[in-house]
Amino acid sequence: MLSARVVLFDVNETLSDTTALGGAFAALGAPEHLAPTWFAGVLRDGFALTAAGASAPFADVGAAVARTLLRAHLEPAALDGAVAAVLAAMGELPVHPDVPAGVRALAATGVRLATLTNGGSAVPAAVLGRAGLRDAFEALLSVQDGPGAAWKPAASAYRHAAGVLGADPADVALVAAHPWDVDGASRAGLRTVWVDRSGSPYPEVFARPDLTVAGLEELAPRLTPLR
Amino acid sequence: MLSARVVLFDVNETLSDTTALGGAFAALGAPEHLAPTWFAGVLRDGFALTAAGASAPFADVGAAVARTLLRAHLEPAALDGAVAAVLAAMGELPVHPDVPAGVRALAATGVRLATLTNGGSAVPAAVLGRAGLRDAFEALLSVQDGPGAAWKPAASAYRHAAGVLGADPADVALVAAHPWDVDGASRAGLRTVWVDRSGSPYPEVFARPDLTVAGLEELAPRLTPLR
Repeated sequence: MLSARVVLFDVNETLSDTTALGGAFAALGAPEHLAPTWFAGVLRDGFALTAAGASAPFADVGAAVARTLLRAHLEPAALDGAVAAVLAAMGELPVHPDVPAGVRALAATGVRLATLTNGGSAVPAAVLGRAGLRDAFEALLSVQDGPGAAWKPAASAYRHAAGVLGADPADVALVAAHPWDVDGASRAGLRTVWVDRSGSPYPEVFARPDLTVAGLEELAPRLTPLR
Repeated sequence: MLSARVVLFDVNETLSDTTALGGAFAALGAPEHLAPTWFAGVLRDGFALTAAGASAPFADVGAAVARTLLRAHLEPAALDGAVAAVLAAMGELPVHPDVPAGVRALAATGVRLATLTNGGSAVPAAVLGRAGLRDAFEALLSVQDGPGAAWKPAASAYRHAAGVLGADPADVALVAAHPWDVDGASRAGLRTVWVDRSGSPYPEVFARPDLTVAGLEELAPRLTPLR
């Protein structure tokens, strides 16, 4: 069992299903397999800025990586529109099938729910709104509002979010599909849940999660809400 | 013109040609396009640890990312061997065609040459040795020997390397194909050269290089060696 006052969700890949991003690249006439390379590249460059003590908005990093990848596949005149289409696709992703019931069951326990993303708040608002789940979350937080706008997994990003929510970091449970997010939250003093929908091995280089679930429906039965 | 006492080269993609990595994945029966996703994922996870104030050896991060990507394509019994083969392939890459003449011309100016990689020193030793260029470099440095073993682009990685070389950071010119490496070195107070072999746009989110070249042969004529 895991005790928490607030359950703090990562958004991209944790709530939204990014496999649909491949279709966005294909619709532009580019290979579907650019989607995972693009997403890994966006995180690589955002984390690089964080490691160097700097920061840039997710949309700017995402646009730059998309431009570099797409220019080998598209006409120059099509690039601006294609870059915008890739970024727009992030807000048009569906949630994973386990998300609606899992979130509703969690909300019914009385625990507080929020999101924390390296992007802005428009993407979670769009994704959760379309899934009819926006009302279950008391806040949609962005690292852009934290100290230096440092991206997760910098400790300051998690601690600032806990502070905004008025909770001790140890009373906040970060839920993420990404091991790097679990690792950073753990080092920042939060509780952690890894959502492993595909039975992946957990990378040994990262701090381990307090709890691993195969889908969000497993979360409510294993959580003790703190008041 | 750029003045420098030491020219410090990044290794993977800057000296070695990582396009051959696709062949290593294909030889294992996995799609070639996993290669750029793998390499971006290794940097993503290594930078994540750096941003979180931690570190792990490049080989361990590389093995974990390879295992996660390859398991969808290979039998479980083949995974250990395949992961080892991907890591071994990094040391078997050829140098880019412009590297031998470019490095020899630089060495002839009397400027000191060294490498700094997020990996160990075995890969640059193998890659430069096979190209007959090992003797042109006075040191093959690894971030593993710096404070906390923090990966580039943490400022401490560059400054420790400058210290080991007995040079002021402002007298060291970092040469890299990766904009994130140029950005980090620039923020750490080094001079920077971006090697842009494919005419890519420089990402606006990163600090700009002092000099951009299309190949290493352009470097010697534009460098003033400091004694």
